[in-house]
Amino acid sequence: MKRVHNFNAGPAALPLSVLEQVRDELIDYNGQGLSVMEMSHRSDVFDKIIKDAERLTKEVMGIPDGYKVLFFQGGATLQFAAVPLNLAADGKNCDYINTGEWSTKAIDEAQKLGKSVRVIASSQDQTFSYIPTDFKINSDAAYLHVTSNNTIYGTQWKSFPKTGEVPLVVDMSSDINCCKLDMSQFDLVYAGAQKNMGPSGVTMVIIKEALLERSPANIPTMMSYKIIGKKDSLYNTPPTFGIYIIKLVLEWIQKNGGLEKLEAVNNKKADILYREIDRSGFYRGTVRKDSRSMMNVPFRLGSEELEKKFVAEAKAAEMIGLKGHRSVGGIRASIYNAVPLETVQALVDFMADFEKRNG
Amino acid sequence: MKRVHNFNAGPAALPLSVLEQVRDELIDYNGQGLSVMEMSHRSDVFDKIIKDAERLTKEVMGIPDGYKVLFFQGGATLQFAAVPLNLAADGKNCDYINTGEWSTKAIDEAQKLGKSVRVIASSQDQTFSYIPTDFKINSDAAYLHVTSNNTIYGTQWKSFPKTGEVPLVVDMSSDINCCKLDMSQFDLVYAGAQKNMGPSGVTMVIIKEALLERSPANIPTMMSYKIIGKKDSLYNTPPTFGIYIIKLVLEWIQKNGGLEKLEAVNNKKADILYREIDRSGFYRGTVRKDSRSMMNVPFRLGSEELEKKFVAEAKAAEMIGLKGHRSVGGIRASIYNAVPLETVQALVDFMADFEKRNG
Repeated sequence: MKRVHNFNAGPAALPLSVLEQVRDELIDYNGQGLSVMEMSHRSDVFDKIIKDAERLTKEVMGIPDGYKVLFFQGGATLQFAAVPLNLAADGKNCDYINTGEWSTKAIDEAQKLGKSVRVIASSQDQTFSYIPTDFKINSDAAYLHVTSNNTIYGTQWKSFPKTGEVPLVVDMSSDINCCKLDMSQFDLVYAGAQKNMGPSGVTMVIIKEALLERSPANIPTMMSYKIIGKKDSLYNTPPTFGIYIIKLVLEWIQKNGGLEKLEAVNNKKADILYREIDRSGFYRGTVRKDSRSMMNVPFRLGSEELEKKFVAEAKAAEMIGLKGHRSVGGIRASIYNAVPLETVQALVDFMADFEKRNG
Repeated sequence: MKRVHNFNAGPAALPLSVLEQVRDELIDYNGQGLSVMEMSHRSDVFDKIIKDAERLTKEVMGIPDGYKVLFFQGGATLQFAAVPLNLAADGKNCDYINTGEWSTKAIDEAQKLGKSVRVIASSQDQTFSYIPTDFKINSDAAYLHVTSNNTIYGTQWKSFPKTGEVPLVVDMSSDINCCKLDMSQFDLVYAGAQKNMGPSGVTMVIIKEALLERSPANIPTMMSYKIIGKKDSLYNTPPTFGIYIIKLVLEWIQKNGGLEKLEAVNNKKADILYREIDRSGFYRGTVRKDSRSMMNVPFRLGSEELEKKFVAEAKAAEMIGLKGHRSVGGIRASIYNAVPLETVQALVDFMADFEKRNG
């Protein structure tokens, strides 16, 4: 069995021990005589799985009372539509901060659906290379939407805006569970599972129960926070296998000391990688230092030709997924929770060696 | 390793050989050094998987040129909304035939979204125990929607309405690929994967290319046939692992002689089960004989007490999923493609024995 160093931006690396458990239970889950994939979503066995996933999410993230943990389908893209459809049915303005591709898509989707959108800050003036700090939240907004981590540009919010009475909505797809946060500051968090939580095809929504009441009746059922909330994610058949894997990943986090421990490891991983980038000038980080992501680390080399060579030689050394997003080029190392410190160290060693040979 | 006789209505049994392959490839797919779950949806390796799934769907089902095979999320429930939002943007009337719970939900969803719905036939007058044959399709309809197989009541269309210029839209969630059909009669077919195709979390949409042009711009992206069609199901991250399993199930169908062969086995399975139901009067079928489903076989016993005993004893004999849907009660055996003839024979033998002991 071969395992490469996986720097994919998403879908991304999963913990090996989780994959091993999935493999071992694939045909006969827990002596039930069938796969999780073959189980009724209304069976007692699956009910325990989904309830465990919800409970573990609350435990691991430290979510206070008064929030629902829900599972949707359709990725963050479905949430780009669901957020305005549910929360701004009354025609109120929707405030957004634009930190790149995913924020832009969220903004476009709200506008497409006829909502009144205000972009109160943007870092587009400098190719989305920083997190804006200068903005004024409108007190009459239906909500403020931010993207906590930009997978493509490699920026990350270090602390979140204080929004007062205005609900704070955060797309946390690419950095959920990368560190411990005060969850009470958020009104709605959503995240596709395929970076830090599990396979693609499941989107977690963490929502203040009071917000559920905002959902109007005339929106598609599969987008209604109220209906999916009332049915505890079981209005129809949820993506059962993905939810099962999320549960295993949460157990893996808990077994390994929780988010505090994970945060320390993630900091270490990001530290050694950024230190190597900054060391000599051979590599060049593209993000303002105070806005650097601890999940997605983009950098450039002296020329596109050298970057191609870097990616090809890295691949030959069993390090995959290092090519930057097609929209920005360069190199990007995604170092999510399941990417071990040793894998990041292997990349750092390769970078030093590559510099020696090409510097 | 234990394997039970699985009569679940969905998620349901998968072919054992497919599950074994999934297990064997789970940690290292094809020598790539990572799981399919950990792969970029834009990688060459996954691109081949999704293209193979599309090609195999066309080959296995015999889909003529001029159709797209797409993968959505959100189950049939998302399609209940997507169909009217995409196809009836011009305010035209939408015709439906109501054969039970799922048709009813499709109708309710279209109405909720402000569409003008006409129910041109319904079998509600006799507890949805038959497929209506007496109806007139309105030539000015945006489309006619039917549910090919009712999972709960156990009815199935044996041939489909001739709709002329009116697009025929079929929810085939619970009997897709159960037999060979002339696909040119359909304009849009959709089906959740979790009965005859794979795990829950993927919905297949087979759509005439000409229909893609009907999608208006102001609907949620994840529901737009036009956008998802233009991007070949890769607008955002699709449920990659589910698509991979669908591909394996299609290969399994092809290896086993295709849909013609599968149809013969499915007929045999349904025949021996219905014959046992009809044999003595101890069991009672609930569906008019000309409308009986070859996928979901509901039947009653003399009393609810006896039915409870039947389900409990069957379970003790390693036969699971036989309890009827909570809305109708009784017994239901779902005998999808992946349920082997031997499993149905085991149930028939159990039924004969149970009758002897309780008749």
